[in-house]
Amino acid sequence: MLRTHTCGELRISDVNKEVTLSGWVQRTRDKGGMIWIDLRDRYGITQLMLEEGKTASEIITQVRNLGREFVIQATGIVTERFAKNDKMATGDIEIKLTALTVLNSAKLPPFQIEDKTDGGDELRMKYRYLDLRRNSVRKNLELRHKVAQQTRLYMDAQNFIEVETPVLIKSTPEGARDFVVPSRMNPGEFYALPQSPQTFKQLLMVSGFDRYFQIVKCFRDEDLRADRQPEFTQIDCEMSFVTQEDVLQMFEGLIRHLFKTVKNLELPEVPRMTYADAMKKYGSDKPDIRFGMEFCPLTASADRPNGGNEPDLVRGKGFPVFDAAELVVGICAKGCAEYTRKQIDELTEWVKRPQIGAKGLVYARYNADGTVKSSVDKFYAEEDLKKWVEAFGAEPGDLMLILSGEANKVRKQLSELRLEMGNRMGLRNPDDYKVLWVLDFPLLEYGEEDQRWFAMHHPFTSPKPEDIPLLETDLGAVRANAYDMVINGTEVGGGSVRIFQRPLQMQMFEILGFTPEEAKAQFGFLMEAFEYGAPPHAGIAFGFDRLCSLFGGADSIRDFIAFPKNNSGRDVMIDSPSRIDQKQLDELKIVTKM
Amino acid sequence: MLRTHTCGELRISDVNKEVTLSGWVQRTRDKGGMIWIDLRDRYGITQLMLEEGKTASEIITQVRNLGREFVIQATGIVTERFAKNDKMATGDIEIKLTALTVLNSAKLPPFQIEDKTDGGDELRMKYRYLDLRRNSVRKNLELRHKVAQQTRLYMDAQNFIEVETPVLIKSTPEGARDFVVPSRMNPGEFYALPQSPQTFKQLLMVSGFDRYFQIVKCFRDEDLRADRQPEFTQIDCEMSFVTQEDVLQMFEGLIRHLFKTVKNLELPEVPRMTYADAMKKYGSDKPDIRFGMEFCPLTASADRPNGGNEPDLVRGKGFPVFDAAELVVGICAKGCAEYTRKQIDELTEWVKRPQIGAKGLVYARYNADGTVKSSVDKFYAEEDLKKWVEAFGAEPGDLMLILSGEANKVRKQLSELRLEMGNRMGLRNPDDYKVLWVLDFPLLEYGEEDQRWFAMHHPFTSPKPEDIPLLETDLGAVRANAYDMVINGTEVGGGSVRIFQRPLQMQMFEILGFTPEEAKAQFGFLMEAFEYGAPPHAGIAFGFDRLCSLFGGADSIRDFIAFPKNNSGRDVMIDSPSRIDQKQLDELKIVTKM
Repeated sequence: MLRTHTCGELRISDVNKEVTLSGWVQRTRDKGGMIWIDLRDRYGITQLMLEEGKTASEIITQVRNLGREFVIQATGIVTERFAKNDKMATGDIEIKLTALTVLNSAKLPPFQIEDKTDGGDELRMKYRYLDLRRNSVRKNLELRHKVAQQTRLYMDAQNFIEVETPVLIKSTPEGARDFVVPSRMNPGEFYALPQSPQTFKQLLMVSGFDRYFQIVKCFRDEDLRADRQPEFTQIDCEMSFVTQEDVLQMFEGLIRHLFKTVKNLELPEVPRMTYADAMKKYGSDKPDIRFGMEFCPLTASADRPNGGNEPDLVRGKGFPVFDAAELVVGICAKGCAEYTRKQIDELTEWVKRPQIGAKGLVYARYNADGTVKSSVDKFYAEEDLKKWVEAFGAEPGDLMLILSGEANKVRKQLSELRLEMGNRMGLRNPDDYKVLWVLDFPLLEYGEEDQRWFAMHHPFTSPKPEDIPLLETDLGAVRANAYDMVINGTEVGGGSVRIFQRPLQMQMFEILGFTPEEAKAQFGFLMEAFEYGAPPHAGIAFGFDRLCSLFGGADSIRDFIAFPKNNSGRDVMIDSPSRIDQKQLDELKIVTKM
Repeated sequence: MLRTHTCGELRISDVNKEVTLSGWVQRTRDKGGMIWIDLRDRYGITQLMLEEGKTASEIITQVRNLGREFVIQATGIVTERFAKNDKMATGDIEIKLTALTVLNSAKLPPFQIEDKTDGGDELRMKYRYLDLRRNSVRKNLELRHKVAQQTRLYMDAQNFIEVETPVLIKSTPEGARDFVVPSRMNPGEFYALPQSPQTFKQLLMVSGFDRYFQIVKCFRDEDLRADRQPEFTQIDCEMSFVTQEDVLQMFEGLIRHLFKTVKNLELPEVPRMTYADAMKKYGSDKPDIRFGMEFCPLTASADRPNGGNEPDLVRGKGFPVFDAAELVVGICAKGCAEYTRKQIDELTEWVKRPQIGAKGLVYARYNADGTVKSSVDKFYAEEDLKKWVEAFGAEPGDLMLILSGEANKVRKQLSELRLEMGNRMGLRNPDDYKVLWVLDFPLLEYGEEDQRWFAMHHPFTSPKPEDIPLLETDLGAVRANAYDMVINGTEVGGGSVRIFQRPLQMQMFEILGFTPEEAKAQFGFLMEAFEYGAPPHAGIAFGFDRLCSLFGGADSIRDFIAFPKNNSGRDVMIDSPSRIDQKQLDELKIVTKM
């Protein structure tokens, strides 16, 4: 070893030891008579010290030639510091240098290797290997390692076997776009990279593996949104002879284990909500339940506590917008009645942005003095507004924000507004973790564009047994044994009880518009496997990058991936993708056309 | 859960409990009055029992309709067996059936789900999901899980961080052929799948990660030999601020940990051998040291104990074959003097096969009565042969087997013969594990075909500092700080101390025939990284599939991979690779030409 200790471990109890450290020069302070060096490695920073007249002059000369990020090996005596630094673990000591070897020099980095760096996103990505030197970025990847390690310990203790499924598989048109790999040995044919190991894990259940998991890379050739990566990592799991309840218990156990071991947080029991309730109360299938602000419908609606038997609180008062709306629904922002006109205008502009798409925003202030003032006073008397107050359960000082329009759209818009208000009101603290199961998703959703039904989760998801008759009569009403885990408004995992009987699976393929030939070509091996004794099984997959970013309290997954790609799918550090040799193309028997 | 217990856990202490099991019908024995079912799951087999007149008749009817591999849920009372079976963990008990649910039926499997199956290789691969039901195959994958889990525990305890490196990277012409992935978003450009994360792990060292590991899929588009797979798994590792000795210690620690935890074997200290010695003594850089049978040269040769100062024991006696040979060298097969003429002829044919390529085999028997008889008695008097005996250290009853020819070729041939004799003499017990470090590999080897030097390990391997001057004068003599771990004659891992200085790395690229432009295009980011303070670093990678097969005492890696590909790179179960839609090709802007 080129060191006796790391830069993070020396303490006052080590005083007088001769030690050798290796690391990077974080900074040098030269006060003439005294020189200090902060020496950095993964484990911490240790201060080195030289003193004119005491330290050998050739070492002092060497040190004066050191630049930032030079790699050195330093030997010296551990000494108690005169001025201790209680902000660092090694702050009680420093090393009186007796020997120095420069292991490597360094050009000046293009940005500062500090937690708060002056490097822009693009520069940091081009020099990712320098960016990764920053404490904050490295900590993210240390956290990721810990989450993976703890996941494996939990799964292993629960008798799950980690099985590696293949990366070179077969392309399936259903779902997102595949990355493909031309086969040289089988010209004209292609492998595909897996979007998930779904069929393989189901086959492992047919094989009797009983409990499978894998932390596994998956691939999706989609146009990249801000926080998507073409390659991403899943915690992929499957179990046999279980009910939905068993899966929920098992993976609630996992998430509690992770919070305990990684964040030292005791998670309470994870609450559950049906998809229908989530849509009604929050207009979202992944509600952020760190705060309330539940939806309050003002039109007669099945969303109301008494299922629509309440009187309509907005229609028939001459306000054409509300009269024409399918749904009028609002949220109550606690203590926001004093919002200025400017703030309200800003909110109105915010909901009218194309990303949200609302036509306008109606508000009503429940003032501290008990009066109610709204932006639609022309149509609604104070007595009408008092009924709104009652419906919202508002208290003096609250602000009611109301949207209207086509029910599905308005719920989505109000959901966005609710989250925005949560942000503005400081109700979304990243260190406050609220985990939620969302259950009973619809099995199918209708694709207007393609004029056909799509599987909401995937084609292997089982309908609820009691809803199977509806497959003949009302496809949109069929609920699935499907579940999502949501943390702080982000979906971190999802899964389902699977179909394990061939006839039902064939029926599903038919509903999804597969001809029997197409179903056979794409999933023939799975259909065949189902004939040889498939057990009841169910599973779940967690987005590992996202889970890590949540544990790290960050919004973006990118800083939890060692070498991420940019929004065009490029790795700007290694400059990939790139052209390849003509010889390679020839061997693969493919031609590129531009 | 569709069960209260697994099929492997009930014991005599559970008698009288009502239990529910789920699993597969392994077999049914119907003796008229009594019926027994062996119910199987991953955890074991439990016997179910029905009795005419006692068990409800509808259950008996149900059971008589069960076929092999039907999936059932069975409830009953745990009962002490009349005839116990001490060969199975649950052999003391059986379950008196009180209720039965058929969860799924099964067609008759195309081969028997037994340890000794009647299924051929091709059939088993097509129905791999049934093959995986076999106890022996599943045990292999359970072992693999355990090796992975224990590897991670060891590495984590040694402060290594597991970092996922990207799968979509950049093609590099050096080394084996890459699999490539056309980029839709960057038409005409390609990603490549990694042959190893070599450059990324070196960049992580530049980043100060200090200790990195990863159990990671790698890819190589090579014509497949019997036991190669296009995708394979490595334990990939790298450390900073270390010497070769530190790496050897660390990973000797890993292998001892694995033997201890997975095989319950205490491994002795791992011996070390230089590449030069391995070639001299065994004619191989991966000698099987479970047995001796070291090479004994009979020509005056540097391989002899006194470095060639011994007299030549074969030349000048009128035997033209030996007179013309660069090297005459043999092995001594203990106690084989009684080999019949037929056995010797068989061995002679064996070494003359094209795979071995020897011209012939000379033997000399040291008979029990002290006489020596050889196949070349015409040229060598008994007194000459006695000198051979002395050189071989042979004892009465031994058989000396001698090959001759061009030194490098003959060593290789004799190495094969030595292994074959080891097999025939039962000296290669798969449960006897002998681990070995082979050190000081040559840095470069000359490729006759391409008329240039190639890196024996890879272009990033550091020459031994004392051999660096030889880079100017004698490339073939430069030794590398490179090391292989060999178990029972199989290379399971290899690595090296890396070059970390840009000028030396540039010199290496030049020696390997890269123009500065080519070096920059392919490894520019690494060269640039080396300018920003690269620490001394070294690493190793283990072939994980191979390691698992060794732990499992098997020759082939295929049964330690859940879903392997065949020798044409095909997955015959999912029928991949396959043609893809024209739409996919169009989006990728590529054309296949046939």
